[in-house]
Amino acid sequence: MHVHVKGFDSCAQRWYQGRRSGCFDARGKLLRRLLQVTFLAILLFAGAPQRLRAETGEDAWLRYAPLDQADVAKYQSLPASVTVLGDSAVLSTAQDELIRGVKGMLGNTLRAENGAPSESAFVLGTLAEIHAASPALALSGDLHGDGFLLTTGRVHGFACTIIAGADERGVLYGVFAFLSKIAQNENVAALDELQQPAVPLRWVNEWDNLNGSIEHGFGGRSIFFDNGAVPADLTRVGEYARLLASVGINGCAVNNVNADPGALHDDFLPQLARIADVFRRWGIQLAVSVDVSSPKVVGGLETFDPLNPKVAEFWRAKTDQIYSLIPDFGGFVVKADSEGRPGPSAYGRTPADAANVIARALKPHGGVLFYRAFVYDHHLDWTNVKNDRARAAYDIFHPLDGQFDDNVIVQIKNGPIDFQVREPVSPLFGGLKKTNQAIELQIVQEYTGQERHLCFLVPMWKQVLDFDIHADGAGAPTPVKVLVSGKTFNRPTGGFVGVSNVGLDPTWDGYVLAMANLYGFGRLAWNPNLSASAIADEWTRLTFGNDPLVVRTITAMQLASWHAYESYTGPLGLGTLTNILGPHYGPAPDSAENNGWGQWLRADHDGIGMDRTVATGTGFIGQYSPAVQKLYESLADCPDNLLLFFHHVPYTYVLHSGKTVIQHVYDSHYDGADAAATFVSQWKSLDGHVDDDRYAAVLSRLQYQAGHAIVWRDAINNWFLVKSAIPDARGRVGHNPNRIEAESMQLDGYVPFDITPPEAASGAKAVRCPAPTEKCVAKFRFSGAAGWYELDVEYFDQSNGASKFRVSVNDQTVDRWIADDHLPALKPNADSSTRRRIPGLALRPGDEIQIEGIPDGLERAPLDYVEILPRK
Amino acid sequence: MHVHVKGFDSCAQRWYQGRRSGCFDARGKLLRRLLQVTFLAILLFAGAPQRLRAETGEDAWLRYAPLDQADVAKYQSLPASVTVLGDSAVLSTAQDELIRGVKGMLGNTLRAENGAPSESAFVLGTLAEIHAASPALALSGDLHGDGFLLTTGRVHGFACTIIAGADERGVLYGVFAFLSKIAQNENVAALDELQQPAVPLRWVNEWDNLNGSIEHGFGGRSIFFDNGAVPADLTRVGEYARLLASVGINGCAVNNVNADPGALHDDFLPQLARIADVFRRWGIQLAVSVDVSSPKVVGGLETFDPLNPKVAEFWRAKTDQIYSLIPDFGGFVVKADSEGRPGPSAYGRTPADAANVIARALKPHGGVLFYRAFVYDHHLDWTNVKNDRARAAYDIFHPLDGQFDDNVIVQIKNGPIDFQVREPVSPLFGGLKKTNQAIELQIVQEYTGQERHLCFLVPMWKQVLDFDIHADGAGAPTPVKVLVSGKTFNRPTGGFVGVSNVGLDPTWDGYVLAMANLYGFGRLAWNPNLSASAIADEWTRLTFGNDPLVVRTITAMQLASWHAYESYTGPLGLGTLTNILGPHYGPAPDSAENNGWGQWLRADHDGIGMDRTVATGTGFIGQYSPAVQKLYESLADCPDNLLLFFHHVPYTYVLHSGKTVIQHVYDSHYDGADAAATFVSQWKSLDGHVDDDRYAAVLSRLQYQAGHAIVWRDAINNWFLVKSAIPDARGRVGHNPNRIEAESMQLDGYVPFDITPPEAASGAKAVRCPAPTEKCVAKFRFSGAAGWYELDVEYFDQSNGASKFRVSVNDQTVDRWIADDHLPALKPNADSSTRRRIPGLALRPGDEIQIEGIPDGLERAPLDYVEILPRK
Repeated sequence: MHVHVKGFDSCAQRWYQGRRSGCFDARGKLLRRLLQVTFLAILLFAGAPQRLRAETGEDAWLRYAPLDQADVAKYQSLPASVTVLGDSAVLSTAQDELIRGVKGMLGNTLRAENGAPSESAFVLGTLAEIHAASPALALSGDLHGDGFLLTTGRVHGFACTIIAGADERGVLYGVFAFLSKIAQNENVAALDELQQPAVPLRWVNEWDNLNGSIEHGFGGRSIFFDNGAVPADLTRVGEYARLLASVGINGCAVNNVNADPGALHDDFLPQLARIADVFRRWGIQLAVSVDVSSPKVVGGLETFDPLNPKVAEFWRAKTDQIYSLIPDFGGFVVKADSEGRPGPSAYGRTPADAANVIARALKPHGGVLFYRAFVYDHHLDWTNVKNDRARAAYDIFHPLDGQFDDNVIVQIKNGPIDFQVREPVSPLFGGLKKTNQAIELQIVQEYTGQERHLCFLVPMWKQVLDFDIHADGAGAPTPVKVLVSGKTFNRPTGGFVGVSNVGLDPTWDGYVLAMANLYGFGRLAWNPNLSASAIADEWTRLTFGNDPLVVRTITAMQLASWHAYESYTGPLGLGTLTNILGPHYGPAPDSAENNGWGQWLRADHDGIGMDRTVATGTGFIGQYSPAVQKLYESLADCPDNLLLFFHHVPYTYVLHSGKTVIQHVYDSHYDGADAAATFVSQWKSLDGHVDDDRYAAVLSRLQYQAGHAIVWRDAINNWFLVKSAIPDARGRVGHNPNRIEAESMQLDGYVPFDITPPEAASGAKAVRCPAPTEKCVAKFRFSGAAGWYELDVEYFDQSNGASKFRVSVNDQTVDRWIADDHLPALKPNADSSTRRRIPGLALRPGDEIQIEGIPDGLERAPLDYVEILPRK
Repeated sequence: MHVHVKGFDSCAQRWYQGRRSGCFDARGKLLRRLLQVTFLAILLFAGAPQRLRAETGEDAWLRYAPLDQADVAKYQSLPASVTVLGDSAVLSTAQDELIRGVKGMLGNTLRAENGAPSESAFVLGTLAEIHAASPALALSGDLHGDGFLLTTGRVHGFACTIIAGADERGVLYGVFAFLSKIAQNENVAALDELQQPAVPLRWVNEWDNLNGSIEHGFGGRSIFFDNGAVPADLTRVGEYARLLASVGINGCAVNNVNADPGALHDDFLPQLARIADVFRRWGIQLAVSVDVSSPKVVGGLETFDPLNPKVAEFWRAKTDQIYSLIPDFGGFVVKADSEGRPGPSAYGRTPADAANVIARALKPHGGVLFYRAFVYDHHLDWTNVKNDRARAAYDIFHPLDGQFDDNVIVQIKNGPIDFQVREPVSPLFGGLKKTNQAIELQIVQEYTGQERHLCFLVPMWKQVLDFDIHADGAGAPTPVKVLVSGKTFNRPTGGFVGVSNVGLDPTWDGYVLAMANLYGFGRLAWNPNLSASAIADEWTRLTFGNDPLVVRTITAMQLASWHAYESYTGPLGLGTLTNILGPHYGPAPDSAENNGWGQWLRADHDGIGMDRTVATGTGFIGQYSPAVQKLYESLADCPDNLLLFFHHVPYTYVLHSGKTVIQHVYDSHYDGADAAATFVSQWKSLDGHVDDDRYAAVLSRLQYQAGHAIVWRDAINNWFLVKSAIPDARGRVGHNPNRIEAESMQLDGYVPFDITPPEAASGAKAVRCPAPTEKCVAKFRFSGAAGWYELDVEYFDQSNGASKFRVSVNDQTVDRWIADDHLPALKPNADSSTRRRIPGLALRPGDEIQIEGIPDGLERAPLDYVEILPRK
C-alpha cells in the first residue's frame, strides 16, 4: 500500500514530543526503517510497565500488563527477535506491536529485524512472502481475506514462530491474536491456528459532528473533530485505530450519518486525509457519511436528483478528488429520506437510484457505499391502528432487491424499530437476495442505559445473528450472521457495522465496563460463532487480568446485565419505555404514544401491545418467511419476551410462565432492580483484586445504576398501575411503607410541586426551593423502632445547576453532597432522579431527620423522598 | 481550656467550603454544639470510603479504611452512640474522631450525644468527670499526665465502653488508641487497658523558614509559612496536628531553630496565634524557636546580654504579649553559639545565663524553654589530633549542671556529632543530674538518605534509648529513656524532641515508607519500651492494611533498612561518609577531612579512625562513666560497629568478626547494595496487595535507591582502595568486567571530563556534551555471548536541567527517558549519579549499542558508564 509522503523533519520533531501519530514513507527502505525505529521508540515510551500508571481505561483490552513472574516463565522459550518479510506501514505496525506487547507483558525487548531470519525468530509476513522466502515450508494454503495463520516451523534452518497473513492486515491481526493469547496466559509453544473473518466489511460508524459534539455519544467530545476542523493532535485517533485493528475492524466512517455536507468541501478533504494517514498504518479505511443533497449544497447545482447527469458528474469528480488525497479511501455512508434528512423521494427516485449514482463514482477506486435501511416516516398517523413504523424498511427496500449496484451495501439495523432493549430480527434481512446487506448494531447504549447502566449487548446481538430467518424457503438454514456475510446468496460482499461513538474521555465511551460492547462487536464481526460468555471471558481477562475471582465475577455480571436492564425497563417486547421524544434515557412510557414517531405501545385501560399480526393487525409479521410467521402470528406460540411487540392483549392475559402480563411487569421490575443492586455487591467483592482507579469508577457507576433502576421500577410499575388499575398481587407497587415523601415532611422554604410526567416522582410530587435562596429544609420525625438503618435520599440532579444537600439526624450532620452530575435533564424528572445512600445510621423513635438543600442555578435542590431501610 | 473567639459567621461560611480548620468557641454550649456539628460535617465530607480516593499517603496511618466485611462483623456489638462528659474543644475533637473512625472502618455513623448516656454508649471524659457522673464505677485511679484508660462498665445502668483520660488530651489519645485497635482488627469487646506516657514533653521541631522553605525538608514547602507569612489556608496544619495527636505529640515548634528574629515581631504574633488556634483542638501546644539576639534585633536594645535587666524585661514583655494571644503557648526553643548563631558567649555569659533569662519570662505562664546542646566550634583546628567536636556538648554543658532553671530543658542530640547513621550515645545524657534533659532525634533523614533511601530509624533510636549510660555510678541502671523522663534524678520534667520537617507534599515528608519514622518517634516518646518490630508492625497495618503478606514484607524491609543503609554508606562507626560541606546526601568521604567542621575520619595510607581514647586520643571516652569507658577504651573490647569512631587502626586490623577492616568495608558495601536491590524484589511481591498509587510511588523510590546504593558502594570502596592500596580479597573493587566506561566508547559530540571528587564517577571520568547542542552520541559494540541481558545506564541527573537520553541496539530504540529528577546537585557527581535499568534485551556479539543524549540547560546529558548483566 503506497501512500503519499509525510516530511521526515516533522516526524523527527514529533519523536521527542512523544506523539504517537504515524510517520511513514514508502520511498526508500532506509527512510522507512528510520521511521519504524522512530515509531517503535514512541511505543516504547508509551509502553512503560503498566502498573506504574493509573489504569484509566484508556488502554482498554490492550494493556499488555506485566504477567506474574510465574506466568512469565511459561514464555521463556519464545524467540528473541522478530523479523518482517516485506515492507509496508501495516507490517511495520505489526512488528512494533509485537515488540510492544512482549515488552509490556514479559519485560523483554525483541530485536527488530528485516528479511530472512538469522536465528530463531518470530517471522511476520504475508503467506506469499513467506512462501517465497521459504518454499519448503508447508503452510496451510487456504487463507484469504484478512485471515491469518499462527504456526511454528523451520525457516532458513531456524525454529521460528510464524505469523502469516492472507494480506498485510492479516499479519497485524495475527500479531494481536498472538498477544491476546499471552495476555490470557495461554500456551503458545506449539501453535497451529488459522483464523478467517466471517465477513469482508467490518466497519464502525461514528456519529461525530464537525463541531466536535457527538450524537448519542457518552464519552466526551469527538476525537476526530473540533470546532469545524480536524484537530492538530490526532493521538487519540491513532490509539482508537489500534483498538479497532486489534479486533479486526477494517473501516470507519468518522462523521455523523446525519451528515454535515461541509465534510465534502474542498478545503475539508485534506483534513480528512490526515485522519486517513493515521488509520492507514492500522489497516483501517477511512469512510465518510454524506448528505445526498451535496451536489446542490456543496456542488452548487440546482438539483441533487440522482438521475441527473450533472449530479453523477458531481459525485464522480468529488470522489476522484478524495481518492487523489486518500488512495485507500473506503467509501460513503448514506442516511436519506429519514428523520428529516433529504433524500431521493424529493425527485420521486428510489433509494437504489440514490445509492447507485454515488456507488458508480466509487467503483473505479474499489470503494463501497453503505445505504442505511433506517428509512421511515416520523409523521405517521398514530390514530390509524394499521400504521406501523416497523414495516418501513421492508416495505421500502424489499421491492428494490436487485436494483442496487454490486458495491452498494444496504445497512440494516438489527431490529425493525431502533435499537430497543429487545426487538425481533428485522425482516429485511430475509427480504434481500440480490442485494448486499450489512447488519447495523449499536455499540453505544443509546436506549440501553447510555453507559450509566451496565448492559452487555453481545447476548442480544447473538440472538439476532443466530436467528434463522428462513430466507431461502425450505432450503438450508439462513441465520442472519451468514446472510450478512453474503455467502447465502453468493453476494460479492457484506458485513457488520457498529455504531461506536467513542470520545475523548479516557474510558472512550464513558464507562470501563461498556467497552466490552466495542470489543464484542469486533469479535462477532470477525467470528459470529463465538459465544457471549467466551467473549465476556476474553474481554475481562484482557481488561482486568486473569485473577479467577475477577474473571468469574465480571463475566457473570456482564452476562446478566442485558436481562436485568430489560427487566426494569421494557419487558415482554415493549421496547425501552423511555422518553423517545427526549434523551432516550429514563422512564417515560407515555412519550411512545400519541405522536407520529411510531413507537407505539397501544396501551389503554384494558390492555397493551401492538397487534402486528397478519390476521388482525398491521401485517408486519407477514414480512417474514412463513416459518418465522408461524413463530409469531399465533398468540399461543409467540414467545413471552416479544409478546407485546406482536400482540395486543389484556393485562390479565396469562403468559407461558403462568403469570398475568400485569403481574409479570410488576415482578420483572422488582427482579431487575434487585439484580442491579446485586451488581454492586458483586463488584465490591473485587475490592483489592482490581486496580483502585477503575474499581472506584465502576463502583460509582454501579451504585448510581442500582438507584436509577429503582426509579425505573417505580415509574413503570406506577404507570401500569394507573393504566390497568390492577394492583400488584404482592402488594408492593404504590406501597412503600419505609418511604417518607418530601411533600409530606415539615417544610421550611421548600415548596411542593407536581412532576411531569407523574410517574417520574414518587407520589407524582416533589419539593423544591421556589427561587434562588439561602437554603430550604424538609424534616420529619422517625417513628420506627430503635436500631441500625440505612437512609436513602431520592433527589433530582439536573445538569443546569449544582445544588448542595445536607442530611442531619437531630443536630448531627450525617452526610452532605453536591448534586453536580451531568445527567441528560434540565428539570426534575426520571432522567435526573438520583439516589444517595447513607449507610449505618443508629435511629431512635422521635429522632428528627432533616434534609437541607441549597439551590444553584436553575436547579432548585429538588427532593423526592427519603426511604429508611433496616441496615443490610 | 478557654480561648478567644472566632466569629461564627466565618465558621459557617467555611462549612460549605469543606475547609477543615478548626472553628470553636467557648462562650456557650449551644454555639459550641453547633460548631461541633459543623466540624463533624466537615469530617464526614472528608471521611468518604477511603478506597474511593487514591491513596496519596496524606492520610498516613489514620486512613480508617473500610474493613473487610468479615472483620466488620467482629465489631457489630459496639455501642451506637458516643456521649461526652464535659465540654471543650479537645473533647469535641475526641468525639468527632471516634465518629469519623468508626464510620470509615465500619460504615456506621455513631450518634453524637452529650452528658449521661441514655442507652449503651461510648462514654468519653476525664477520669474526674466520669467519677462525678457515675461514682459507683470503680475505675483504676492511677492515671496521670496525658494517660488514658479503655474499659467497659455500666454507666447509669447501661453497658458502656469507657474512654477515660487523666486530662482532656488523654481522652483524645484514648480514642486514637481505640481506633487503632479496630484498624488492626484487634478484639475490643472486653477492654481494660491503662496507658501513660513515659515522658511529659513529647514535642516535634520543624525547621521551617518564614519564607516557606524548610532546612533539610524533603516533603515540599512549608505547611506553616509562605513568603514571610502564615498562609490563609491552614488545612494541612490541622491534618498534621491530627497525625501528631494520634501518636501523643503535645508540642510543636514551627519555625527553624536557625531562627528568624522576625518570628517575634509584633505583627507576626497574631499569625502564629492562628496556627495555635488550629493546634489547640488537637491538644498540641505551639512553640517557637527564638534567636537570643532578639532583644537587640527585634526589641531595639543595644544588647542581648542575658544578664542585662533590659534584656530580661524584653523577654518578659514579649512573652506576656504572646500569652495574651496564645494562652496555651508551649514555650521557646533556642539554638545559640552554634554554626554561626549568636549566643551568650558574645558577652562572656553561659548557656545557662541565656536560658534562664528567657525561662523566667515563661515561668508565670507555665511555659518551658528547650536549650539545644548542639553547640560546637566549626572553626576547630583540624591539624590538632587532640581536637574533637564530639567533646563539645559535654565540655560546655556538664559544668553548668544545676545552673538551669526548672523550666529549662537541655535538648541533647542522640549522639555527640550530628545524626550520623551510627554514633555512640551522647555522654551528656549521663552528665546532667540537676538539669532537665530531652533527647533530640532526627525524624527527617538528613544524613540517612533524605527520604530517597529507605531507612527506618526506630532500631537506631532504640539502641540509644535502651543504652545504660551508668549515670548513677553503681546505682540502678540508668538507660537514656529513663534519664530523659526526669525520673532518674527526680527532675520536674523531661522529654523527647523529634525533628520532623514535614511539608506540603501529600506524603508529608516525600516518601510514604519514611512516615514510619514519624509514627515511630511518637510511639517511642509515648512508650520507649515498645520494640522496633512491634512499631513497624503497627505502622504497616495502619498504613497498608492487615494482609499478612503485606505486613510481613514491609515490616521486614523496614527492620532491615537501617543496617542496609549503614552497610553501603558508613560502617564501623565511620558515620555517614557523605558530603558534609554540601547537601549531606551522596558519598564524598574526603569532605570530612581537612576542615574545621570536625567530622574527621583521620584516614591516611596506613589506617583510619578517630582515636578518642583517654589513653592516647582526644579523651572523649573519658566523658562517659567508668562502666561505659570500659566498653570503648580498649581496642580489644570495643564493638566492631563503633570501632572507627573510637579508635584509629590500620586497614589490616582484624575485627571480632575475623575480617580485616578493609575487607569488612568492601564486603559491607557489596552486602548493603545487595540488600537495597532485595527491597525492590520484596516490594514487587506486593503488587496487587497494595493500592496502585502508593505501590508505584514506592517502587520508583526503591528502584532509585538500589541504583544509588551502587553509586555509594563504588565510591566508598574506590576511595578506600586508593587510600589503602589494599585490593579487595574477592577481586570486585575496581574490577567491573561488565562495565563499559562512557569515556572509552566511540564518541560523537560527547567529550570526556574529570569528575570531582574522583570516586563520584566510575573510572573518575564521565562524558558530557561540551555546550548546548542538538545531541551527543556514545556507542560501542557488544562483545559478549548471545543471550538475554539487562543493560544499566549510569548517568547524572542534575536539578538544573532535564536532558533527554535514548538508548538503541543497532538501530532499534530500546529505551528513552528524560533526566528531570530534583536531586540535590548542580553538577555531575555522586549526588546526581542515577541508574536506568533496561531489562530483557536480546544481544548478539557485534551489536552496536548507542546512547544518545540531548543536553538541557546547565545539564549536559552527562553519562558515566553502561553495565551489561545477564538477565536475572
